[in-house]
Amino acid sequence: MIRQLFAEALGTALLLISVIGSGIMAVNLADGNVALALLANAIATGCMLYVIITTLGPISGAHFNPAVSLAFFLRGDLPASLLLAYPVAQVIGGVLGVWACHAMFDLPILQWSTTMHRTGGAQWFSEGIATFGLLFVIFGGIRSRPEVVPTLVALYITGAYWFTASTSFANPAVTIARGFSDTFAGINPGHIPMFILAQIVAVAVAHPILKGLFSDTPRI
Amino acid sequence: MIRQLFAEALGTALLLISVIGSGIMAVNLADGNVALALLANAIATGCMLYVIITTLGPISGAHFNPAVSLAFFLRGDLPASLLLAYPVAQVIGGVLGVWACHAMFDLPILQWSTTMHRTGGAQWFSEGIATFGLLFVIFGGIRSRPEVVPTLVALYITGAYWFTASTSFANPAVTIARGFSDTFAGINPGHIPMFILAQIVAVAVAHPILKGLFSDTPRI
Amino acid sequence: MIRQLFAEALGTALLLISVIGSGIMAVNLADGNVALALLANAIATGCMLYVIITTLGPISGAHFNPAVSLAFFLRGDLPASLLLAYPVAQVIGGVLGVWACHAMFDLPILQWSTTMHRTGGAQWFSEGIATFGLLFVIFGGIRSRPEVVPTLVALYITGAYWFTASTSFANPAVTIARGFSDTFAGINPGHIPMFILAQIVAVAVAHPILKGLFSDTPRI
Amino acid sequence: MIRQLFAEALGTALLLISVIGSGIMAVNLADGNVALALLANAIATGCMLYVIITTLGPISGAHFNPAVSLAFFLRGDLPASLLLAYPVAQVIGGVLGVWACHAMFDLPILQWSTTMHRTGGAQWFSEGIATFGLLFVIFGGIRSRPEVVPTLVALYITGAYWFTASTSFANPAVTIARGFSDTFAGINPGHIPMFILAQIVAVAVAHPILKGLFSDTPRI
Repeated sequence: MIRQLFAEALGTALLLISVIGSGIMAVNLADGNVALALLANAIATGCMLYVIITTLGPISGAHFNPAVSLAFFLRGDLPASLLLAYPVAQVIGGVLGVWACHAMFDLPILQWSTTMHRTGGAQWFSEGIATFGLLFVIFGGIRSRPEVVPTLVALYITGAYWFTASTSFANPAVTIARGFSDTFAGINPGHIPMFILAQIVAVAVAHPILKGLFSDTPRI
Repeated sequence: MIRQLFAEALGTALLLISVIGSGIMAVNLADGNVALALLANAIATGCMLYVIITTLGPISGAHFNPAVSLAFFLRGDLPASLLLAYPVAQVIGGVLGVWACHAMFDLPILQWSTTMHRTGGAQWFSEGIATFGLLFVIFGGIRSRPEVVPTLVALYITGAYWFTASTSFANPAVTIARGFSDTFAGINPGHIPMFILAQIVAVAVAHPILKGLFSDTPRI
Repeated sequence: MIRQLFAEALGTALLLISVIGSGIMAVNLADGNVALALLANAIATGCMLYVIITTLGPISGAHFNPAVSLAFFLRGDLPASLLLAYPVAQVIGGVLGVWACHAMFDLPILQWSTTMHRTGGAQWFSEGIATFGLLFVIFGGIRSRPEVVPTLVALYITGAYWFTASTSFANPAVTIARGFSDTFAGINPGHIPMFILAQIVAVAVAHPILKGLFSDTPRI
Repeated sequence: MIRQLFAEALGTALLLISVIGSGIMAVNLADGNVALALLANAIATGCMLYVIITTLGPISGAHFNPAVSLAFFLRGDLPASLLLAYPVAQVIGGVLGVWACHAMFDLPILQWSTTMHRTGGAQWFSEGIATFGLLFVIFGGIRSRPEVVPTLVALYITGAYWFTASTSFANPAVTIARGFSDTFAGINPGHIPMFILAQIVAVAVAHPILKGLFSDTPRI
């Protein structure tokens, strides 16, 4: 179990390095061109997701996301004993990843996001859609072609940076960890709870729909 | 059959979310740089196409496109009973997807496109080429390597945003749904009929050519 | 044989549509940002290459390139009877593809490139490197993992737009067809012969090297 | 063994062509937009990495990187007799690749980088993270899905251009060869030793961690 938790923490740390690090680099270089910065941010995140899901999937299942762990638990595919431990490992890993980024870019290690524009009803709805979509690709992919799940998640998130209004965190651990960085990808800590609530509601809504849609032809 | 129609509607909704949502986000951020906006639009759409064809293909065939459904019917691979139901589900799903985008981006839900520049003979010819190409990759892929059809369609459309003058809707459901959004990817409702006509003509032209080209070595 | 030649002509036409069409679109939208235009041009070409090699490979071998046909002939993998017919079909297809682009973008069908900056010794050397690299990926891929040859060629050319000084035509049919378009991707007809010579020299140089490097562990 | 060393030299030469060549082209075209130049640089490098690892992997293992060769040696997967020869071949190939770029772009062949901004503690830490990550994807991929290692390395490096502060050389041969080019991707020769030290420290740190993490379910 230690190895599984280490894998979840390491993977989430690497995920946050890709999200926060590429955001910092992009803003440093993009000279105010936010679309170009977001493109780099999206591509770097997608690249990392493919990598960590492929390599760590055989060890821990490669959730890196409390909402995904909760969804696996609801399906009976994660033991209750890990339902708390996985998210704790994910959040710790995520915050360590953010701090590693700050060290790489010579920024103060300890920060809190002061971003103000990422909140409000439309953004919460957006996170609901984003999380529903993420669960859709994971559980749809597991049923139809499990070997391409890393590709599915990576491409979905790369696209979702653009087609959701919130740029798709879709992940409570990422949402919390982004609170620790006052850079491009930061989220104001005060805005975090409502995003997490939206993500959890999406899990609850998605569970029966995806069960019905993808259940009767099990392929694994 | 309900599950198939639900899959077609859900997939087309997600497709439109990727097309319309990424268009809105891109224009918001690109500060007038239309090439950059189109690049984001193309990448986001390609990402989503791979995802929805992979996950929903085993359920409904993953058409999400009345022109594709018509082409499968002409080949004898779609029963006549679904020739009307599939397009209806696709159009309903597409419009719901557009509306979900408007909600995510805090825009008025009900809109009609007022775009004026997307029409004329060259654009209709372009849609004919675009639709021919789409059928070419689908039926060529089914014959040569069925497992990469999601990749083929995703890459073809990503490229076709750029190499066709119309940016390749190549899909009557997408064309109609785009009429409901007065944003980057919108199509003026008055210009829709001629685009759909061009798409249907392309199906009629492509059918015998692709049948001859790809028929005598069936691999499925 | 008719079907093979038709496949070579159709594939080369689609290749030129991707090269010329995306160049026109990109310049129309990029507002003078040549790097962004080249990025769109490279991505669109790579997408199309994957598609046409995958779908037409089982029919004609998917050369779409006289230099590649010559290299296959030197290895004994293309009968002498096709050594002239293939290139003729490729050039005809390429020119028709260019003309289809002009029709889509409402431009005069018949044009000749007046581009002046694409020529000179460094550019010829660049075409030699580009063509050597293309043959390297094709014959290396055939030996190591034939099923990914479409991916190899698509990624190689996408990258080579950037890492060769000539943007890598690496293809006499493409070089000739580009002479017929006075747009972003055009090549001055007077500069074409030296490029083709460089490409043929590269075939001659690559043949023994690749034969030695990749020969003693045949995997097909 | 000659063939292996030739493969290592050729692959590293092609890798440097992609790194240096795309950097030169990007800066020539990007008109001061460094983010766009880095995006082209990252994409071109990723494309090439996929190509050379896929084609040359069966011959030499496709290291192209003394740090990777050292890591394989520590695992007992590279004979001591090649521990010096591989890096020598890699460095020679890398420098020849840089010179081929200069010839293609009509620049003086012999140059030394005068870049001043790439150095300092944060950058060295960044190279440590970058190299750790590279070894993580290689050895994790070998265990979980060896056939996707080329994809893993290509995507990791494409992303790491953005999410590490140093843009991830993660490779002593590339670091040395970049010293020979006073262009976009150059590294001041005086700054090279500390980067190489950071890379070697990362190999030493990663070895026991990755052995523990990935060892007990050997899949090859």
